[in-house]
Amino acid sequence: MSVLQLEDYNITIGHLTADHVRWLADQHFAGIAVLVDTNTEVHCWPRLQGHLAQLSPVLIRIPAGEQHKTLATCQSVWEQLFLAGAGRNWCLLNLGGGVIGDLGGFCAGTFKRGMAFVQIPTTLLAQVDASVGGKLGIDFYGVKNSIGIFQNPRAVWADPHFFQTLPPRELRSGFAEIIKHALIADHDQWQELLATEDLKAIDWASWVARSVAIKQQIVAQDPHEHGLRKALNFGHTIGHAIESFFLETPNPLLHGEAIAAGMICEAWLSAQLVGLSTAHMEAITGLFLRLYGHRAVPVAAFPELLSTMRQDKKNEDTRINFSLVPEPGYVRVNQTATPTQIEASLVYYNGLASGG
Amino acid sequence: MSVLQLEDYNITIGHLTADHVRWLADQHFAGIAVLVDTNTEVHCWPRLQGHLAQLSPVLIRIPAGEQHKTLATCQSVWEQLFLAGAGRNWCLLNLGGGVIGDLGGFCAGTFKRGMAFVQIPTTLLAQVDASVGGKLGIDFYGVKNSIGIFQNPRAVWADPHFFQTLPPRELRSGFAEIIKHALIADHDQWQELLATEDLKAIDWASWVARSVAIKQQIVAQDPHEHGLRKALNFGHTIGHAIESFFLETPNPLLHGEAIAAGMICEAWLSAQLVGLSTAHMEAITGLFLRLYGHRAVPVAAFPELLSTMRQDKKNEDTRINFSLVPEPGYVRVNQTATPTQIEASLVYYNGLASGG
Repeated sequence: MSVLQLEDYNITIGHLTADHVRWLADQHFAGIAVLVDTNTEVHCWPRLQGHLAQLSPVLIRIPAGEQHKTLATCQSVWEQLFLAGAGRNWCLLNLGGGVIGDLGGFCAGTFKRGMAFVQIPTTLLAQVDASVGGKLGIDFYGVKNSIGIFQNPRAVWADPHFFQTLPPRELRSGFAEIIKHALIADHDQWQELLATEDLKAIDWASWVARSVAIKQQIVAQDPHEHGLRKALNFGHTIGHAIESFFLETPNPLLHGEAIAAGMICEAWLSAQLVGLSTAHMEAITGLFLRLYGHRAVPVAAFPELLSTMRQDKKNEDTRINFSLVPEPGYVRVNQTATPTQIEASLVYYNGLASGG
Repeated sequence: MSVLQLEDYNITIGHLTADHVRWLADQHFAGIAVLVDTNTEVHCWPRLQGHLAQLSPVLIRIPAGEQHKTLATCQSVWEQLFLAGAGRNWCLLNLGGGVIGDLGGFCAGTFKRGMAFVQIPTTLLAQVDASVGGKLGIDFYGVKNSIGIFQNPRAVWADPHFFQTLPPRELRSGFAEIIKHALIADHDQWQELLATEDLKAIDWASWVARSVAIKQQIVAQDPHEHGLRKALNFGHTIGHAIESFFLETPNPLLHGEAIAAGMICEAWLSAQLVGLSTAHMEAITGLFLRLYGHRAVPVAAFPELLSTMRQDKKNEDTRINFSLVPEPGYVRVNQTATPTQIEASLVYYNGLASGG
């Protein structure tokens, strides 16, 4: 069990034990609700249920999937909390992936102006990405996470045992954030990652702890994303737009898959704009293609992607903001690229189809 | 012009001037939006429009009235912000009464995880009640303010000139909060209030400043309503339930009118439970009846009122929480009353119909 102590809460990385439940009981909440989706109710809830039985938790259910990360789902959660008689001094345990954590945290943070919540991320992506930073929210107006708040949970319980319930594609998707953290802040870890052949052989608890610590160091210096925290946005300006675009198709990409494509594009931009060497750019491109394959972005969709990027919260004005990597382990925030350069990076990515 | 300097923002009480706009321009927001409703667009916006012209504000419109303090209206505000191209570094000016301030603040505080906002309360109630405390939110599931957040604005501009645009009934409604502040914290002001005959003769800027200062002192000691801040709840446990009930009838009460009835009931409870003298109880009852008249609460509605009170955010568990007044100028939080006592207080109120 590894414990990362933050200013106002702890992240434990390791198996869920009676200690977790003892801590929860010691908080003397007036009631406990557990938010699950149709997947985590089947695959993850049984692991927690026995531990929690003494606290008589109420189960709150929502459908699984990013397409349900909406205000309508929030309404359902709030209504179920009302029906359960929940008050501000209850605690909501969010058991699931990124949608459960982001949406459940937002619902808790706004229910009666704020009830406590604990994040129990069950996917690799959620453990590495959503455990730290207090970003909560939902998709709105076709824009990811465009309605939300910043608020910290009372605790994060990250148990890699849940990864056994994940499809391999999902696990691989989460791995993209580990790679991103290394690329922007840890040159040594990047070297180790380049040598990674088999995701099955990884000691997840240790890798998750290391990656979470990187994110934590960055967030602590800039909790509300005014500056340095934008470093975490590497690959995400273009990646989010790619993800939004494919979300509307019959064949959506997982977040990590879209971000992997975004990091290839933004590595290309890094080479153009902040001096990333061609060798590094090709190493980055190679690793992502090897792990994530390739999905061409239709040229006809470029204007839509640019429009989505302009909506990004990190933009100071109409320019599109990037965090770019001059070399692995380092990052430069507040870079801007022209629409022509951005389109060229997508053309570069599309051109990798045969070479990948 | 009186200025109340709080920890992270200022409240100015007095006429809007070029200084306000100069301060706003100095913040270098990327854009300015102004939230109005169908009333304030006509009656209040013209007073502001000339001052703001140089900042090219975008007008965001919603329908007027508490019945529109809903998630659906939030969706409309968020969509209009998107259409205007607003980003996180814009500022929303909320020009209107309590609904505009609470809902507009909530929309701003959640738009792209938080854009800046300035409150420009145009009613007496909003100036005295909503200027301080950072409570933002909407009505949901039939419960007032049940979804929301705590967040402070960048500034509050309270201009009593706007009161000229208010119907006398609205002005009188806001006056109930001034009375409440005196009853819980300022014995001298209570004596002055008892002598008040004519609302038209009042120097509002000075009374508003004094009342806001009382609220500010209480809120500063308990920003998230864990203890002392509940003092402000005097009259509100029953008053909110009365307000919710009449909201569903063709003839709703204004907030202050409902709270006035609630304060009569809770003065009666104060006499039963915390030793308020009969003389003081009758003085309180007399003042409220003189100013606000009387609206009997149907006995058949008592169970519904009790159910609403049980939903109140201030309850620690299933008991119903009150803040009661042992004598004018003093308050005791965390008092509880039984359903029988609460119903008896409503019977007391109903019995005042002829005597008022």
